[in-house]
Amino acid sequence: MSQSCIIIGAGNLATHLALALKKNGHDIVQVYNRSEAPARELAKKVNSEYTTNPYQLKSSASVFFVAVKDDAFDEVLSKIKLNDKLLIHCSGSTPLSALSNYSANYGVLYPLQTFSKDRYLDFNKIPIFIESNSESNLKLMEEIASSLSEKVFELDSEKRKSLHVAAVFACNFVNHLYTLAGDVLQEKEIPFYILKPLIAETAKKIQDLKPFDAQTGPAVRNDEKIIAKHIESLEDSPELLNLYISLSKSIFNHHQK
Amino acid sequence: MSQSCIIIGAGNLATHLALALKKNGHDIVQVYNRSEAPARELAKKVNSEYTTNPYQLKSSASVFFVAVKDDAFDEVLSKIKLNDKLLIHCSGSTPLSALSNYSANYGVLYPLQTFSKDRYLDFNKIPIFIESNSESNLKLMEEIASSLSEKVFELDSEKRKSLHVAAVFACNFVNHLYTLAGDVLQEKEIPFYILKPLIAETAKKIQDLKPFDAQTGPAVRNDEKIIAKHIESLEDSPELLNLYISLSKSIFNHHQK
Repeated sequence: MSQSCIIIGAGNLATHLALALKKNGHDIVQVYNRSEAPARELAKKVNSEYTTNPYQLKSSASVFFVAVKDDAFDEVLSKIKLNDKLLIHCSGSTPLSALSNYSANYGVLYPLQTFSKDRYLDFNKIPIFIESNSESNLKLMEEIASSLSEKVFELDSEKRKSLHVAAVFACNFVNHLYTLAGDVLQEKEIPFYILKPLIAETAKKIQDLKPFDAQTGPAVRNDEKIIAKHIESLEDSPELLNLYISLSKSIFNHHQK
Repeated sequence: MSQSCIIIGAGNLATHLALALKKNGHDIVQVYNRSEAPARELAKKVNSEYTTNPYQLKSSASVFFVAVKDDAFDEVLSKIKLNDKLLIHCSGSTPLSALSNYSANYGVLYPLQTFSKDRYLDFNKIPIFIESNSESNLKLMEEIASSLSEKVFELDSEKRKSLHVAAVFACNFVNHLYTLAGDVLQEKEIPFYILKPLIAETAKKIQDLKPFDAQTGPAVRNDEKIIAKHIESLEDSPELLNLYISLSKSIFNHHQK
């Protein structure tokens, strides 16, 4: 069933969520954001109204999505007349209970993906994890989530937090290692694009192999001579050196077990 | 021009290199490896002879490829009659000069990729970095490298070492983060496959965006509340906790500059 939605937030996640809702037949009534430009920009994309004043949010909408940092929840939610409408947050590490003060009907809809505003994503392939405060709300959430993606799973707050931690390792930290690799190359005026086939294959490998079995490199071979050379060459970059040593030790420890 | 090659080593890199040479019209005369089973296995794949005795290597071959750990170089190379044939190593972090004791003609051919034996790779798309001790050898190396890949670059030993360090960050450490993410999930009985779309998209993003611009997650947003929750949830895993904190700090430092 099509819902009339309000989107609170206009960041990366809010943008992709609003676009996916719109694309799948839901109506975006309003976008709220503290600063105006992002609100206006998103509202334009989904053909909705926008506001920077929480008191002006329309309580006639059927579902309210919150996609802001959880320390900003209260600032907005305490000012909206929710009238027990379905209130949904999209955060991996915020418990379901964070919404209990604002509505009698609430849930979590957590799409596991890395969202950058201007990048196209097929939302239908993104795993979505849901949780709710009642069986009937869960059924409604399942309906909404299934309209957005073919991969919908129920997951409680505790497990979702671990899933978020795992995602930080597999995505945010991974991307930062790409940045650090680029820094190492830049020192020698080697362009970053040279790493792209390696990065692509590293990610592709684990679509078929377990990452443990896909591990290559000096640390898993315990190639001490190479490791010593690398450590020497990183001596002027304490941060890189520290990470090189910690990660190499961690690889070695895992594979000696 | 087609070469008659000897492959010293039968590991992941030696296997992919021998297959690529064979596929592109070169002849593999012999495979050497200290232990017999891998030598036999690779020899079968490339339709060559094999030996575990360096004294039995045929000095009639035109090119000798060394693809073993560099601390094993001397053990093999000191026993071969090279007769100044072209001797090539394939290591990122071993200088060209490591071969100077064994032949008057030598070079480096470093393919930048992660190699697992049973995984198909299109060698033609792999960047290859070459270096040699003379202009004429470099020309021959360029010919050989270009027969294997459309992406051939000249790079000196010092820069190649930095390239290898960058590759360790962008590939080996990245893959280990996938392993650690899987460990976090396993604790909560969540299957690893759930991360696959996220891992794929994280790698795809940087094919278009600079990794610095592609960064997402709590550390780059400086979302202290989420970070505190993650740190709490990792308290029983000191190794994960240490890496979580170091990598988050590194992201934060980079993006505050």
